[in-house]
Amino acid sequence: MKIFICGFGTVGQGVAETILNKKEFFEERYGENVLVVGATDSTTYALDENGLDLKKLLATKKTTSNVGNDEYTDVVKVLASSDFDVLIEVTPTDIDTGGVGLGNIEYALGHGKDVITVNKGPLALKYKELMDLAKSNRCMFRFEGSVGGAMPIINLCNSDLAGQRIKSIRGIFNGTCNYILSKMDSGQPFEQALKEAKQQGYAEADPTYDIEGYDSACKVVILANSVFGRNVTFDDVDITGITSINADAVALAKSSGMVIRLIGEVSATKLEVAPRLIPKGHPLSLAGTLNTAEIITELAGPITVSGSGAGRLETASAIMSDLVAIMDRRLGE
Amino acid sequence: MKIFICGFGTVGQGVAETILNKKEFFEERYGENVLVVGATDSTTYALDENGLDLKKLLATKKTTSNVGNDEYTDVVKVLASSDFDVLIEVTPTDIDTGGVGLGNIEYALGHGKDVITVNKGPLALKYKELMDLAKSNRCMFRFEGSVGGAMPIINLCNSDLAGQRIKSIRGIFNGTCNYILSKMDSGQPFEQALKEAKQQGYAEADPTYDIEGYDSACKVVILANSVFGRNVTFDDVDITGITSINADAVALAKSSGMVIRLIGEVSATKLEVAPRLIPKGHPLSLAGTLNTAEIITELAGPITVSGSGAGRLETASAIMSDLVAIMDRRLGE
Repeated sequence: MKIFICGFGTVGQGVAETILNKKEFFEERYGENVLVVGATDSTTYALDENGLDLKKLLATKKTTSNVGNDEYTDVVKVLASSDFDVLIEVTPTDIDTGGVGLGNIEYALGHGKDVITVNKGPLALKYKELMDLAKSNRCMFRFEGSVGGAMPIINLCNSDLAGQRIKSIRGIFNGTCNYILSKMDSGQPFEQALKEAKQQGYAEADPTYDIEGYDSACKVVILANSVFGRNVTFDDVDITGITSINADAVALAKSSGMVIRLIGEVSATKLEVAPRLIPKGHPLSLAGTLNTAEIITELAGPITVSGSGAGRLETASAIMSDLVAIMDRRLGE
Repeated sequence: MKIFICGFGTVGQGVAETILNKKEFFEERYGENVLVVGATDSTTYALDENGLDLKKLLATKKTTSNVGNDEYTDVVKVLASSDFDVLIEVTPTDIDTGGVGLGNIEYALGHGKDVITVNKGPLALKYKELMDLAKSNRCMFRFEGSVGGAMPIINLCNSDLAGQRIKSIRGIFNGTCNYILSKMDSGQPFEQALKEAKQQGYAEADPTYDIEGYDSACKVVILANSVFGRNVTFDDVDITGITSINADAVALAKSSGMVIRLIGEVSATKLEVAPRLIPKGHPLSLAGTLNTAEIITELAGPITVSGSGAGRLETASAIMSDLVAIMDRRLGE
């Protein structure tokens, strides 16, 4: 199985590291190893049809900040020059245009390659087009890690819970916001909680994407399309972020046994991200950086899942689960 | 797809009802319907190679307490007289001998039929033998509902989390015990909490199987074998039930911010059911009748799931997920 990794930041490196560590697992389960035959970062590329030396690749990236010596002008041309089976697309999310990720995924699906991504831009903007492209080229297109990181949700709904109607999903889909709101539970003002989130590495220098609810909105769109069979994009989401939450609001909530959490909600008719009052002790009152989701099912009532929403190996683990599903299908278990 | 249902109590009826309600789903997904060609209860049987009328079957059971007019002496002979693809084995659990369920499953797997069960007896006593039989006859043998009812766990670990090592699973696997312990949290003595559990229908007239931890032990065995690849049986579990928990112990726990919960724990080396002190707010401090499990993974840290541990439609939903997996494999998605 030949893999191409587009994007060699935290997640891309986590994937390479995991594939390296899982050599025995792959050989035992499939009788063959996974070869990474190509990798790109934002400016350079590395190719080897016999499989790149992943240890060396990771070391090169660490010491030179580049994945290879050769620069590219058009990443799709690099993809086109390589013979691979599965694209792992982990370039940064761009929710305005879809970014380079969109072109990479279109190229791969259009040329009969399976695709795994955690890049929310293409999924939140062009889900239907990409899924149609995958279908017409008989490709698998999977993106478990795009919602909730290591928290199992998309494949859980579509495979383990297949056969029963899912009525709605409500969840905490952004660890940064939840960290900030959890800090505010104990009386910290918003600005101070945000500052701490930055110091801890949970918030970006420009935290807009998280605290305005845009990241959660992308995830709600992905769930709407993939679990509820809707055809919506980022612009369809009713979004309120957490920037207007102040200490008074939190104190008022507390006085009636509630906390404030940024909740994404999706059903056949809803598509919303907003701060909500949640009773203490409810699964969605969770504190900290974990993600959690409450799946309301037709037959089984509520099923709750939680797990790490981000992180190098956590996201790599979701990508691994997609890769295993693809390899099971292609190579037989 | 032709189904035979052995056991027509609460769960068996829930399965029949669900198959009846899912006609459209099956036809849309597979282009064919599911036919129930046979059903048995503890004394009678009903057969129809063109598919039993499930509405009528459910009504007959309700009015006469029997699934059919004909009594059997040997249930395996009834199975042998029917041409079916999948056995849904939902007779009552017998952890001493495996009960009739064991013979039914052996017959079906031995004759190339796929099997879905939630019957913990055969799984806790003869897991390895049954799995070997399934493999040598190229059958699928699935039992998602045997642990945690509607809470996704076995298929989640073996498919969604495939490819990463699961270090351990700790969980609340018995809703009856958890109901009793939750009542005791607020000061009720054990006997009164047990009485209430009986009144609410959560505990059997003879509650031994639940409160002595035997039910949880079966589930821990099933996880040890199916997720950790061990080869253990019921007798290998280190079991302590909840009958010795008194109000003093609960009060002492409470004074240090803890609650007492009956926890099943399984890993490559552990196999244990015992009351444990759990900090309030921890996922395993859950109150009420839900089941929950904390899956400690190699790459993704802890992943927590919870859901209804029992109930007619809840258990039927787990059986449905196994049936969908079998039909996906046999008929293609």
